[in-house]
Amino acid sequence: MNFTTLLKGAVEKNNSLLCVGLDADLNKIPTHIAKQPDPLFVFNKAIVDATADIVCAYKPNSAFYEAEGPEGIRQLKLTVDYIHQTYPALPVILDAKRGDIGNTNDKYIEFIYTYLGVDAVTLHPYLGGESLEPFLTRADKGAIIMCRNSNPGAGELQDLVVEGRPLYEYMAKHISNEWNTNGNCLLVVGATAPAEARRIRDIVGDDMWFLVPGVGSQGGNIEETVRASVNSQGDGIVINSARGIIYAGSGKDFGQTARNEAIKTRDEINNYRKA
Amino acid sequence: MNFTTLLKGAVEKNNSLLCVGLDADLNKIPTHIAKQPDPLFVFNKAIVDATADIVCAYKPNSAFYEAEGPEGIRQLKLTVDYIHQTYPALPVILDAKRGDIGNTNDKYIEFIYTYLGVDAVTLHPYLGGESLEPFLTRADKGAIIMCRNSNPGAGELQDLVVEGRPLYEYMAKHISNEWNTNGNCLLVVGATAPAEARRIRDIVGDDMWFLVPGVGSQGGNIEETVRASVNSQGDGIVINSARGIIYAGSGKDFGQTARNEAIKTRDEINNYRKA
Repeated sequence: MNFTTLLKGAVEKNNSLLCVGLDADLNKIPTHIAKQPDPLFVFNKAIVDATADIVCAYKPNSAFYEAEGPEGIRQLKLTVDYIHQTYPALPVILDAKRGDIGNTNDKYIEFIYTYLGVDAVTLHPYLGGESLEPFLTRADKGAIIMCRNSNPGAGELQDLVVEGRPLYEYMAKHISNEWNTNGNCLLVVGATAPAEARRIRDIVGDDMWFLVPGVGSQGGNIEETVRASVNSQGDGIVINSARGIIYAGSGKDFGQTARNEAIKTRDEINNYRKA
Repeated sequence: MNFTTLLKGAVEKNNSLLCVGLDADLNKIPTHIAKQPDPLFVFNKAIVDATADIVCAYKPNSAFYEAEGPEGIRQLKLTVDYIHQTYPALPVILDAKRGDIGNTNDKYIEFIYTYLGVDAVTLHPYLGGESLEPFLTRADKGAIIMCRNSNPGAGELQDLVVEGRPLYEYMAKHISNEWNTNGNCLLVVGATAPAEARRIRDIVGDDMWFLVPGVGSQGGNIEETVRASVNSQGDGIVINSARGIIYAGSGKDFGQTARNEAIKTRDEINNYRKA
């Protein structure tokens, strides 16, 4: 099954466009968890068990696990395996923002798809489609390419004018026309830039899905984002929230607190899906 | 000591602009090494011991270690520690091509500088200088930003015309003028594009160093590359070679074979340093 089919199944099953970002940080997880063995995995498991009927995907960010060295990588693998074994309908996206020459991307694929076994990965476009071939030809996996990011300085390069339009618009059209031959490309389109998201949606049409970071702590507004980004079917977007959900509580009931926040966020998103 | 000072010291000490890429691959290292415990580290140690008086830096590529999961990361750390402890004059560059929002880059820094303790890292520019602040403000470490890569399709984005010049030229000027306030930025400038390298050198002047991949297996010509890229002092470039050196031999004497190849490459580079 390809990634978008898996994703759409989860969206439908849980009536949700919400992805929870599993950015597990030893300095932020509840102290009673931080003291246990495999604390990042124990934390993630609790968050996943509390939200698995509310979300359409999970997105661990590789940086948070790499920060803990081999132990972190091992717990990232435990997390991915747990989600896949316990909730097989839910895709796992690795936010890794990789992108090297083809020969090296083959090695990243060994880490991302062979070792971890996630369903999709985020990618940098700067080295071009030829470099990303190892990812683009994996028709069974999602290649989520950065187009317009959510950080305050994203426009510095992404708004540069190329052929009469901002680079992010050029990239959206180019990826849609040239890189998506296997129908497995998605775009990263930040929630902090709803006007840009609208233009990207107009350019790529209904079929291409967006991964939308930047709501919650980063300041993106859910109503504006959803109205700007959804396709004419009222879907086509996966809105990621990490800190705002996983660190909503810090007590023994942090799972329930995260669940409550996830429900609130999912419902708010659904509120604006249909015009 | 900052990265460029460390690098210049090694260049002078070994009269070398050659960096050896430690892209250790279980499928390519000699079979008598592949059967031992910690094979990637044992292989790297032999290569390093055979070449430490010939090179100005080592560049492990993170992807090759990530491919082996936690065990690979552990052996990457063993490699970095071994080089630093045994040959403290030689900098280690992690080729990781990272680049996320600032909050996440802080976590990559925990992996790259706190855990591994390398001296410099390669970075993607697509999210802008604001996102890279955690790297740019580390004045003690090198931030090696991709400008014009060596892969066949690098020009797809990097040659797009922005403000009347190719994006890679725009980026060279922009990084030099705006991102390099701590004097710790270097540029990735591929050996497969000597004409582009010449233009980048003309734009950024003598002081900015280039990391130059793409000689050897990727097809870059050493004479053309050196002549096009050096500054007026006959340095300012670090030429990386990985496969062509580390896999030059596959027998018990692979270290000596790698050494011979490294000497040949260093000498060929030095041949063309002064016009």
